[in-house]
Amino acid sequence: MANSGSGESMIDRVMRVLEAFDARHSELTISAIARRADLPRATAYRLIAELAGHGVVDRLPDGKVRVGMRIWELSYRSLSVRRLREVALPYMNEVQRHIQQHTNLAIINDGEVLYVERLSSARAARNIAQIAGRLPTHACSSGLVLMAYAEQEQREAFLSQEHPAFTEHTLTSPVALRTELAEIRKRGACVSRGQIIDGSDGIAVPVFGAAQEIVAALNVVVPRGYRSVDAAITVLTSAAAKISQAMAAGMMAGRT
Amino acid sequence: MANSGSGESMIDRVMRVLEAFDARHSELTISAIARRADLPRATAYRLIAELAGHGVVDRLPDGKVRVGMRIWELSYRSLSVRRLREVALPYMNEVQRHIQQHTNLAIINDGEVLYVERLSSARAARNIAQIAGRLPTHACSSGLVLMAYAEQEQREAFLSQEHPAFTEHTLTSPVALRTELAEIRKRGACVSRGQIIDGSDGIAVPVFGAAQEIVAALNVVVPRGYRSVDAAITVLTSAAAKISQAMAAGMMAGRT
Repeated sequence: MANSGSGESMIDRVMRVLEAFDARHSELTISAIARRADLPRATAYRLIAELAGHGVVDRLPDGKVRVGMRIWELSYRSLSVRRLREVALPYMNEVQRHIQQHTNLAIINDGEVLYVERLSSARAARNIAQIAGRLPTHACSSGLVLMAYAEQEQREAFLSQEHPAFTEHTLTSPVALRTELAEIRKRGACVSRGQIIDGSDGIAVPVFGAAQEIVAALNVVVPRGYRSVDAAITVLTSAAAKISQAMAAGMMAGRT
Repeated sequence: MANSGSGESMIDRVMRVLEAFDARHSELTISAIARRADLPRATAYRLIAELAGHGVVDRLPDGKVRVGMRIWELSYRSLSVRRLREVALPYMNEVQRHIQQHTNLAIINDGEVLYVERLSSARAARNIAQIAGRLPTHACSSGLVLMAYAEQEQREAFLSQEHPAFTEHTLTSPVALRTELAEIRKRGACVSRGQIIDGSDGIAVPVFGAAQEIVAALNVVVPRGYRSVDAAITVLTSAAAKISQAMAAGMMAGRT
């Protein structure tokens, strides 16, 4: 239904238009959209006009286009992780006040780590995670924690593959990763040293839901050689427990 | 292009499907989606299948459907207010630590107040604002501040209308609203008493951008009869100034 001559659906094209935008390309000309979305310019023109009519994109006075607030609004208000994020935020702040680096909240989505919230200090270590950004599961502390406590089927699928190396510290083989996941379950935390960029380490703990299933990873990114790893794990574990309690309390009270 | 027999476009239908979901309807059966979006059931079925293929919606094991993370991710990462929200969050936390009620960040979008962030205390006054939720501009402290400092054309359009009353305290007439906006500019803050629900007051201040244009309102919602209004204005004004400085500093440094 609603296919163009090329057999490509309208929804395909809309998704490609939205994918043309990112943090470094938040405002684009229609020509740039057409190029980045691989669409004929006339098609891009018509599509942008229709999307603008629905508030999906905004047309700026200089002719550039940006993603409108409407699509964020519609997606956020029913988001499955909305309540998790809102409940977690005050406790993430406690972590951030203690550790003063970067504090992240992440979930697994489509086999990758998706960051749903981040708090940062201006003087913190380098952290390549961005809110609404993704990182490979095997190469960050959040991903390893999420896999360590994942359902067995999901974990085995993850462990059945070779994964690419980003630095000399990246764990890539099924054997090394299996050992690491067992270590994480024993310690209740993952300490990942420079696995994705050199110079930054990650420390992550699991956040559990009402049925003791893992729902997220809470993590901090700290500079290489950070001395207070055990203290950080204590702070993170305490915050994660409070998030779980607050979520359970909210469910009991029937809050949305 | 891509119109159905009814002359309605695919994008119309997709937007109506997304609009069927909200905080209290975050998981829906396809029948419920068809009903809420006013679509034939077979059309809803085909549309959901295609949207699920793009990660716009997820199909759950019980057959229900929810909005997927993909659409939030695509909308958030290039969001025009992304940087504002991320810069503002630590300062909103300072406000929240002092006042311990609700702290909100809001913008004007399509003539309404759209809340882009909220921090709440469990024991706070009733606050009907939700993140990604909207309130009428004339009936909340954030909206009145945003209008008080809006460009003249936007302000006059707002003041040319009668607005509906929600409580006996709602300002509805152009004359009353014009006086209120002048008062806000004189004081640098809006104190709105039970204009939208009885029992809760709002206190809001403007957040200015690099060119001294208003970019957001920072507000707290407090219980009726709250005694520390002047202290709250001082805390809010200080936080708003720090947000403006941090945004300007980030722009100078070319951060995205």
